[in-house]
Amino acid sequence: MPAKNIDLTIIGGGIAGISAAIYSHRAGLNPIIFEKNVLGGQLLYIDTVDNYPAVYPHTPGIKFVDVLNSTLQEFKVNFINESVEKVELSDNGIVIYSENDTYLSQALIIATGAKPKRLGIEGEDLLIGKGVSFCAICDGFFFKDKDVAVVGGGNSAVEEALYLSHICKKVYLIHRRDKLRALDYLQKELFSKNNVELVWNTTVEKIYGEGRVEGVVLKNLVEDKKINFSVSAVFIAIGIEPVTEIFKSIVDTDRDGYIITDEWMHTSRKLIYACGDCRRRPLRQLITAASEGAIAGLSAYKDLRGNYISQ
Amino acid sequence: MPAKNIDLTIIGGGIAGISAAIYSHRAGLNPIIFEKNVLGGQLLYIDTVDNYPAVYPHTPGIKFVDVLNSTLQEFKVNFINESVEKVELSDNGIVIYSENDTYLSQALIIATGAKPKRLGIEGEDLLIGKGVSFCAICDGFFFKDKDVAVVGGGNSAVEEALYLSHICKKVYLIHRRDKLRALDYLQKELFSKNNVELVWNTTVEKIYGEGRVEGVVLKNLVEDKKINFSVSAVFIAIGIEPVTEIFKSIVDTDRDGYIITDEWMHTSRKLIYACGDCRRRPLRQLITAASEGAIAGLSAYKDLRGNYISQ
Repeated sequence: MPAKNIDLTIIGGGIAGISAAIYSHRAGLNPIIFEKNVLGGQLLYIDTVDNYPAVYPHTPGIKFVDVLNSTLQEFKVNFINESVEKVELSDNGIVIYSENDTYLSQALIIATGAKPKRLGIEGEDLLIGKGVSFCAICDGFFFKDKDVAVVGGGNSAVEEALYLSHICKKVYLIHRRDKLRALDYLQKELFSKNNVELVWNTTVEKIYGEGRVEGVVLKNLVEDKKINFSVSAVFIAIGIEPVTEIFKSIVDTDRDGYIITDEWMHTSRKLIYACGDCRRRPLRQLITAASEGAIAGLSAYKDLRGNYISQ
Repeated sequence: MPAKNIDLTIIGGGIAGISAAIYSHRAGLNPIIFEKNVLGGQLLYIDTVDNYPAVYPHTPGIKFVDVLNSTLQEFKVNFINESVEKVELSDNGIVIYSENDTYLSQALIIATGAKPKRLGIEGEDLLIGKGVSFCAICDGFFFKDKDVAVVGGGNSAVEEALYLSHICKKVYLIHRRDKLRALDYLQKELFSKNNVELVWNTTVEKIYGEGRVEGVVLKNLVEDKKINFSVSAVFIAIGIEPVTEIFKSIVDTDRDGYIITDEWMHTSRKLIYACGDCRRRPLRQLITAASEGAIAGLSAYKDLRGNYISQ
């Protein structure tokens, strides 16, 4: 029997979830926000933010987290530092099973975000934390003056390579195609670096090492030949995948697992909303996640209270 | 013959247009932003902003404008302080006629925002600036310790009434229905004010006065009778309407004049985008306008340069 009745549950404490909490709380709801780690989501791994309108460029990611935390505290939003294990629908509402408790909620906003995709190759899982990393800002310093590899060809991969170029001796950027997908200005900056070598048309077949990464076996797709590079770390930046596993039986997702919503952030299920990186969306940016959280929060308010919102 | 070739024109210097400029510029385009007034748009009339995620609550609207200006300056975005009079399509691109010059642009982002709706009654136009106002923050102080009226029932009307309740002797809130559409917390605060009187089921028939507002003639819709109130000012807050007149022959709009776009901010016309308050959208907030500007800016980049953007 659920012990605690609440009007709105938000799962995920990144900028989307926090924005949803701010907006729904200000509108008069009493949301609870669940986050198993500290608040901040992917912001915790961002060095500086340059492109969030109305915040000065070059603001550290951690400063964003600080402002978001302060805002939640000022508005006295309930934050529960537990993971949600399971969500079930019942006649009385949505049942939320957290690590330590059970809640009955009238509405639910899913803001669980995304996590880095893995290559799915030999050595990858075994050597995570031992040279295999998904975050140059987190782990780059451990490989000061060493040779490292970055895998990928989008904005993230180029940003990781640029970041590492200031720390490491040599950075190999391994990409399976013959051109990058990153924004022009990032590419320009990358090509200006002397210690970055682009390895085109190449995939990673295997990461090897005894207890720590010692090298990678690569495959050149054009010449169909294998190459062996000695590196101390492999930074994987081939994109992200949504954290939506426990919701797939409840709401519609696309083939990649992203939750499908309308522009009001309604999912296929009444009173359940999704926003941020767990949602299928045109552009994955902090500013779009914040906007979607605001819309989801006010949608929940509107649907629960029946009030029309003029603006 | 157009003299100046540019890749992207942005019309409107509110947060949507500025966000579009930041994003498109960082992606490698060289946008020009047109604004006939100073930059800032409706932010110039906002007292404090409480609900923009990652900015501390209670930040003055003018501080937002300052950060946005600094960002444009840091990125050296071209700003032209002129109004755009006309936009035409040609075989070579989009022709932009500003006050003083003509430009040929490959792409266009419309971010012209919205302006307050008028009642369309006797005395209104004549007494604008003489007691008829659309902005309590701008003009409220001129009516310190006087009796004033606010017209409307949504968030804006209630916010105007609350703001004026701290300055004026008495505030009449005149609303044509028998309940407000504003958010709960705003209504609660309003009902707690001793010097605010709600005038339900009532419309304004006429605003009168010799050279300045002296009173209003009201009509009670339920009892079908007329009432005369002496007031020194009438603040009209019945919503906004999009500033889209010069674009209606070029892109599709809805019946209220809002420009219709998809979620990438594409209008019905190739290489023309719309974002912010001039666009049909679910929620009119600073944070949604900033997000839409970012999407429009990167859409233009993507369509002009053919680059895929991963995030």
